[in-house]
Amino acid sequence: MRSYNKYERKSKIVDLKTALKKSGIKDGCTISFHHQLRNGDYVVNTILEVVRELDIKDIRLAQTALFNIHEPVIDYIKEGIVTRIEGSINGVVGDYVSKHPLRKPVVLRSHGRRWADVKNGNLKVDIAIIAASAADEVGNATGIIGKSAFGPIVYSQIDATMAKKVIVITDNIVEYPCPYQEIKENYVDYVCEVSRIGDPNNIIAGSTKITTDPVKQEIAHKCIELMDAAGIIKNGMTFQSGAGGISLAATKYLGEKLEEKDIIASLVMGGVTKYMIDIYESGRAKLIYYAQCFDTYSVEYISKNPSMPIMDIGQYADPTAKSRSVDSLDTVVLGATEVDTKFNVNVNTHSDGRLLHGIGGHQDTAAGAYLTIITVPLYRKTNPIVREKVTTITTPGNVVDAIVTYEGIAINPRRKDIIKKLEGKIEILPIEKLKEMAYSQTGEPAPLDTEEEIVAEIRWLDGSTIDRVYKIKEE
Amino acid sequence: MRSYNKYERKSKIVDLKTALKKSGIKDGCTISFHHQLRNGDYVVNTILEVVRELDIKDIRLAQTALFNIHEPVIDYIKEGIVTRIEGSINGVVGDYVSKHPLRKPVVLRSHGRRWADVKNGNLKVDIAIIAASAADEVGNATGIIGKSAFGPIVYSQIDATMAKKVIVITDNIVEYPCPYQEIKENYVDYVCEVSRIGDPNNIIAGSTKITTDPVKQEIAHKCIELMDAAGIIKNGMTFQSGAGGISLAATKYLGEKLEEKDIIASLVMGGVTKYMIDIYESGRAKLIYYAQCFDTYSVEYISKNPSMPIMDIGQYADPTAKSRSVDSLDTVVLGATEVDTKFNVNVNTHSDGRLLHGIGGHQDTAAGAYLTIITVPLYRKTNPIVREKVTTITTPGNVVDAIVTYEGIAINPRRKDIIKKLEGKIEILPIEKLKEMAYSQTGEPAPLDTEEEIVAEIRWLDGSTIDRVYKIKEE
Repeated sequence: MRSYNKYERKSKIVDLKTALKKSGIKDGCTISFHHQLRNGDYVVNTILEVVRELDIKDIRLAQTALFNIHEPVIDYIKEGIVTRIEGSINGVVGDYVSKHPLRKPVVLRSHGRRWADVKNGNLKVDIAIIAASAADEVGNATGIIGKSAFGPIVYSQIDATMAKKVIVITDNIVEYPCPYQEIKENYVDYVCEVSRIGDPNNIIAGSTKITTDPVKQEIAHKCIELMDAAGIIKNGMTFQSGAGGISLAATKYLGEKLEEKDIIASLVMGGVTKYMIDIYESGRAKLIYYAQCFDTYSVEYISKNPSMPIMDIGQYADPTAKSRSVDSLDTVVLGATEVDTKFNVNVNTHSDGRLLHGIGGHQDTAAGAYLTIITVPLYRKTNPIVREKVTTITTPGNVVDAIVTYEGIAINPRRKDIIKKLEGKIEILPIEKLKEMAYSQTGEPAPLDTEEEIVAEIRWLDGSTIDRVYKIKEE
Repeated sequence: MRSYNKYERKSKIVDLKTALKKSGIKDGCTISFHHQLRNGDYVVNTILEVVRELDIKDIRLAQTALFNIHEPVIDYIKEGIVTRIEGSINGVVGDYVSKHPLRKPVVLRSHGRRWADVKNGNLKVDIAIIAASAADEVGNATGIIGKSAFGPIVYSQIDATMAKKVIVITDNIVEYPCPYQEIKENYVDYVCEVSRIGDPNNIIAGSTKITTDPVKQEIAHKCIELMDAAGIIKNGMTFQSGAGGISLAATKYLGEKLEEKDIIASLVMGGVTKYMIDIYESGRAKLIYYAQCFDTYSVEYISKNPSMPIMDIGQYADPTAKSRSVDSLDTVVLGATEVDTKFNVNVNTHSDGRLLHGIGGHQDTAAGAYLTIITVPLYRKTNPIVREKVTTITTPGNVVDAIVTYEGIAINPRRKDIIKKLEGKIEILPIEKLKEMAYSQTGEPAPLDTEEEIVAEIRWLDGSTIDRVYKIKEE
């Protein structure tokens, strides 16, 4: 007898202002977002606009990442509306904060560590805002279907379970029940409808672009040769790569190598791209084991092939979990802004000290994979990329195995097992030699002009601070 | 660099004894189980045998339900190995405990309330045992595939996240990663392989049996007539029914009525049966919105149609959640062992006071549905089923709307809205009239011969104790 009591389906649809007010928004509270709308995201800016209208100050942002589209956040910082940030700040916001540190350092975590810290209460979220490309009136929600589809929502489940209040924001209210449900109604307080959650041209790339630069293509080929020489390319292998130009090329060349050697991989893991799907469709991988999607091709493919299990980020990489999917990686191909002779890797700052990138899954996969490969150019213009000491340590050298450059490959001397396997198959250069080759082109690195004030803390997987980013002087 | 650190996939497969010892099993601890292997379950007995071998005493069982196959539990009670139970005890164990109360009363909760109490720590689980028909070596696990398939694991996710230690037990280790994953590796400590987790003939009925009794068929027809007269049978309607003979008939007749009236339901909810699938396949329901499966037909169907969202029990019915699927039910057809003139319903005890059944989803759906229909015979042999006062209140009369018997239908007088809708369409009898008709056949109910000692406490959705079951004298 539903009419008698509170157990009755009631629409949770309210306007944004009402949702935030009913969620108890107040000065000093923490609001979280996922970043799966990427550089097309309208949601962060829209919410902060309402926060301003409500005259609320001192917000702590707990987004998974910000992009250039979030340039208005700089204004909200200047106005004292945003005073603290825990999450990646890619691009312009990172640039601004590098020169104008917040009251407390920005905290950067890997995908897995962020999940852990929301789970264990180290990062307490008051209001979770969950962007969805489809949702029903009670909050069952997905990113898989709809005009703003971006792939399954995989970052926000932990926010949904842990935040005091949960608001789903969508541009596509569908009939109950929403046919895909990465977010389930039992965790949702309010549903808000907006005309668009993002700019479809920037939510997700139509197709991610494989490199056409012969130097980069050669680096990708070297990665595959390295894997092969290390004995990794065999039946049942597991592989992850990202969506950058070299990574996509490495995925494509791996597919060709699997074909050539008549090998069937157990799985290709991570964010889905067309090149992963090609391997799967050609029968060269038994499974795409995925979390997010990186291109519209894969979003459409996934919506038509719902049988593949979706990993949430906790399953993928939570370092406090009982195990993780990344623990099963044979190899991962990752990029870097710098590497050093101790095999430390920087992905957060540029050599001028500006904080321009997040950690993403870099630490997670580097620590998980049997063979962690970093691809870099030796130098960029007059700046050595392989160097004595990275500007910022993101991923420590003790979980990095190989540095692959166009000019040669260095293997971490700790990996005597790998080095032995490569003997007579692949030429290995000492990392110092790569550094010298870089310096011979660029000279010594330019000195870093930073002050004592701390801009950001880089967390390692165990929750400790592995490095800090310091304020840089304005030009 | 996986070789360096703890982030490396390591098999979690150990034998049962090792798993329990490493999980810190000790006197007084709480072990939980799901009941989805039903009367074919080997897991509870197997685990308790190991507990005995380990010389552990004073276990609190926190299973979702026990069946006749768990008769050995009686021995474990006699030996002091099991001293407390929180969960349903159907059949022989319930009969035994009714005559030999445990040290503390058995606690019975609905599906939804149990989920809530594990979630909020009212029912703390030390070791969760999760039976799976397939699992990989790190604990990704499912009930959907394999020789002992029983449908998706839907009761144990909350145990997996809340229990101190989690053990997956399976008779089917599959290649990593398990292709279905109701349980994910990040929550699993150990995986144990056994030859069989259950007796395939009793895990799940080959097909659930629709009633062939014309009296019961007429009751099912009356349910559909009532729904129709109440204006429920219209496009977008939602419906749930169980797996009993009358419920299956009601589902079948609803399908026929939808066809006849050219109506398309929004969804058929709950445990899946062939009759629900028939409605869906004929295009008369847009979705099967399901948790468990009730027959092998539906287990196979679901494994081939993975696109339909699986409800977990928290989403389905957690009364402490922000909303539930059951809140969306237009109508539910439920059974009872007794009903009374206040529309209270008993599903737990027989009229002789023996505790023989659990609550299941009775309270959850009764409170959620707009029109809650209870089907009963007026009397069984010499025992009146419609009576002045039920032996035990499971579901209170204020969430029950209609009592449907072969002899007539009574509507809860609180539902003036329904009564008005039925005027001139369906004959309604006062509930007292139904009671009198029953008593005229059976005489007054036999007096109940119970003692003061409490056998069990029946929890209501809000966590309070709605009624108690008392010790009955042995013959």
